[in-house]
Amino acid sequence: MGRPIVFLTDFGEGSIFVGEMKGVILKINPNAKILELTNSIRPQNVFQAAFLLKYSYKYFPKNTIFLCIVDPEVGSERKPIVVKSSNYYFIGPDNGLLYPAAFSDGIKFVVLIENKKYFLEKVSYTFHGRDIFAPVAAYISKGVPLKNFGPTVSSIRDLVFEEPTFDENGCLVCRVMYIDSFGNVVTNLEEPKFYSLLFKYNLTKTSNLYIFVGQKLYEVKMVKYYCEVGEGSPLALFNSFGLLELSINKGNASEYFSLKEGDVVKIRFFK
Amino acid sequence: MGRPIVFLTDFGEGSIFVGEMKGVILKINPNAKILELTNSIRPQNVFQAAFLLKYSYKYFPKNTIFLCIVDPEVGSERKPIVVKSSNYYFIGPDNGLLYPAAFSDGIKFVVLIENKKYFLEKVSYTFHGRDIFAPVAAYISKGVPLKNFGPTVSSIRDLVFEEPTFDENGCLVCRVMYIDSFGNVVTNLEEPKFYSLLFKYNLTKTSNLYIFVGQKLYEVKMVKYYCEVGEGSPLALFNSFGLLELSINKGNASEYFSLKEGDVVKIRFFK
Amino acid sequence: MGRPIVFLTDFGEGSIFVGEMKGVILKINPNAKILELTNSIRPQNVFQAAFLLKYSYKYFPKNTIFLCIVDPEVGSERKPIVVKSSNYYFIGPDNGLLYPAAFSDGIKFVVLIENKKYFLEKVSYTFHGRDIFAPVAAYISKGVPLKNFGPTVSSIRDLVFEEPTFDENGCLVCRVMYIDSFGNVVTNLEEPKFYSLLFKYNLTKTSNLYIFVGQKLYEVKMVKYYCEVGEGSPLALFNSFGLLELSINKGNASEYFSLKEGDVVKIRFFK
Repeated sequence: MGRPIVFLTDFGEGSIFVGEMKGVILKINPNAKILELTNSIRPQNVFQAAFLLKYSYKYFPKNTIFLCIVDPEVGSERKPIVVKSSNYYFIGPDNGLLYPAAFSDGIKFVVLIENKKYFLEKVSYTFHGRDIFAPVAAYISKGVPLKNFGPTVSSIRDLVFEEPTFDENGCLVCRVMYIDSFGNVVTNLEEPKFYSLLFKYNLTKTSNLYIFVGQKLYEVKMVKYYCEVGEGSPLALFNSFGLLELSINKGNASEYFSLKEGDVVKIRFFK
Repeated sequence: MGRPIVFLTDFGEGSIFVGEMKGVILKINPNAKILELTNSIRPQNVFQAAFLLKYSYKYFPKNTIFLCIVDPEVGSERKPIVVKSSNYYFIGPDNGLLYPAAFSDGIKFVVLIENKKYFLEKVSYTFHGRDIFAPVAAYISKGVPLKNFGPTVSSIRDLVFEEPTFDENGCLVCRVMYIDSFGNVVTNLEEPKFYSLLFKYNLTKTSNLYIFVGQKLYEVKMVKYYCEVGEGSPLALFNSFGLLELSINKGNASEYFSLKEGDVVKIRFFK
Repeated sequence: MGRPIVFLTDFGEGSIFVGEMKGVILKINPNAKILELTNSIRPQNVFQAAFLLKYSYKYFPKNTIFLCIVDPEVGSERKPIVVKSSNYYFIGPDNGLLYPAAFSDGIKFVVLIENKKYFLEKVSYTFHGRDIFAPVAAYISKGVPLKNFGPTVSSIRDLVFEEPTFDENGCLVCRVMYIDSFGNVVTNLEEPKFYSLLFKYNLTKTSNLYIFVGQKLYEVKMVKYYCEVGEGSPLALFNSFGLLELSINKGNASEYFSLKEGDVVKIRFFK
């Protein structure tokens, strides 16, 4: 069976571009195991893709090959690369997308994809996913050594996610990283940091949070799971990524709070 | 290859939660065959999931494992279960979702999922699909006996679909169970019951139906397939679930009749 | 493993009809390799399906079985067929859908699907995808010879895509064939024809294009890849299908030009 290949793209669910990439892979490796992490990255949103990859990669088997195509600069000088980390392979354009996940797993080395022998015969200017990245992923899944694809490089473009910081009023300034399909609002506040802050402010975990969205203040109950509050009520919890999430029990928090990805949420620990 | 695992969730197509569950399964069983029945159940709509599962399960091979995650009460006291029916395995929360399908296939026994040995090491409060249900499905696909997961239980939460009934005016009161992606309106009237009623009223199958949507009366042609009527014309037929469906040839019946899931449609057999 | 089966339908992503078809196939061939080209064809749009199939099929392995269900006349007299081309199998209704791809690959022979032995026991009037086409695809993937399914036929319904032509003012009249998920506008102008026209008019490839959408004239830069122009600027290029495409760098060309599938775009080669 070999190493599974996992897609992460902005082509949209049901895109025939995804279908074509699968065809290309199967032509090279008829036994390839192809999965989709998601093809619903918002068009050209490298940030969103990098975020979701960072918080998902570790659930896949060792040696999984992540084929990541969010590539607004396709055809230009941006480089196609393979990042070998401690446990995985990450393939995609060198635009920051692969960095947070690979860095978190431990980057071993990076190969620049240059050897045309492993490309489709005719390479388009607009779809390297099909013509370069998919065939390279297929060859890696068959065990072709990474050195065959090109030289190693000593640096790649990084992308570092902002950490929450305190403002002049003692509020913790968090960023909305992701809105999921239920409308849950996922922030950049990780659980260990939160506990340290609770400790510092001498609060118990069951305390409510006071959050500012713009000038508006909300008191939000801090819970473990969604249905601890009544239907339609707001809540905050640490979600399955280990990040602080604002939610509405059986509702849509993104709409409730009028929050979208990239927005700021401020948390105050005292009334 | 073993037993296929079929997903039925409300995570949305392209949800990375679906992707993570696949990763978890492959880590445990690299040869797992994973399929998707649908991930497009409307958020938290246990009823819709139960309906679609009931009318679809039998098309899958014997011993298929249905992994069903529509779980608004995740984290609370609701129980994770495996239902073994005559031919299948149904895994999910004990909230009624699994009941209609398993009952229809014949429930053999039910196991409460308790043995943490088969969970992910760290179980979140919000995503048991990934942390409990997916690993259990993977172990079942590898042949781990059900008794290993926990004790059997003697009852589960049921969910029984309403049957059509007659009102005081002699109209058959049907419920809209499902609107499909073409806008077809699927009711709860099964074909054998309909034939019995035709017989009772001494009607032939080619008769038109008189249907009330609210106060409005429509005369609808009863046909076998969609293009028996002109484009844009309404029709009724027994669909591939064996249920009465209202449709518009090359059109959208849900919009035409202003009907949505849960609404009532009344059928009169005489002018 | 055998021959892969590739779905092309208008059922919508996440449709349970797609799920049921997979179940039916696996019951017959537990080792079937099922892929999706797309299930997002616009409802009943045979033209769009035929177009995407024509420009995608060749990326799949030899002997791939394309299971194509866009079937507004299901249940009527339209015929279920298998087209054997030089390298592939195309299964679907005889409504033109299969023609452009099969013709381009070279049609060898066509079999009418008649032998009920290969159907599901109970065939509905509305879902031949599940009850006839999916089982036939599964049997072909197992190696059942085509002659077993029915007699050969000497003609099928064709569907020929319009070629660009010149109007009385010397403008090249192109048709919008497809809008992709990024909003890129794909026309019916193939690259070789374009070059011949450039040669005829003695123009260089870097020339700008003058395009009319309705009465409105745009000057559009002709480039190789999207980010050769500034963000939000219009461009034209030959895309991964080898067709002229109008695009906006990091934007949506369909919205920018108010163009939809089927519309006309006129190209003038001189200012």
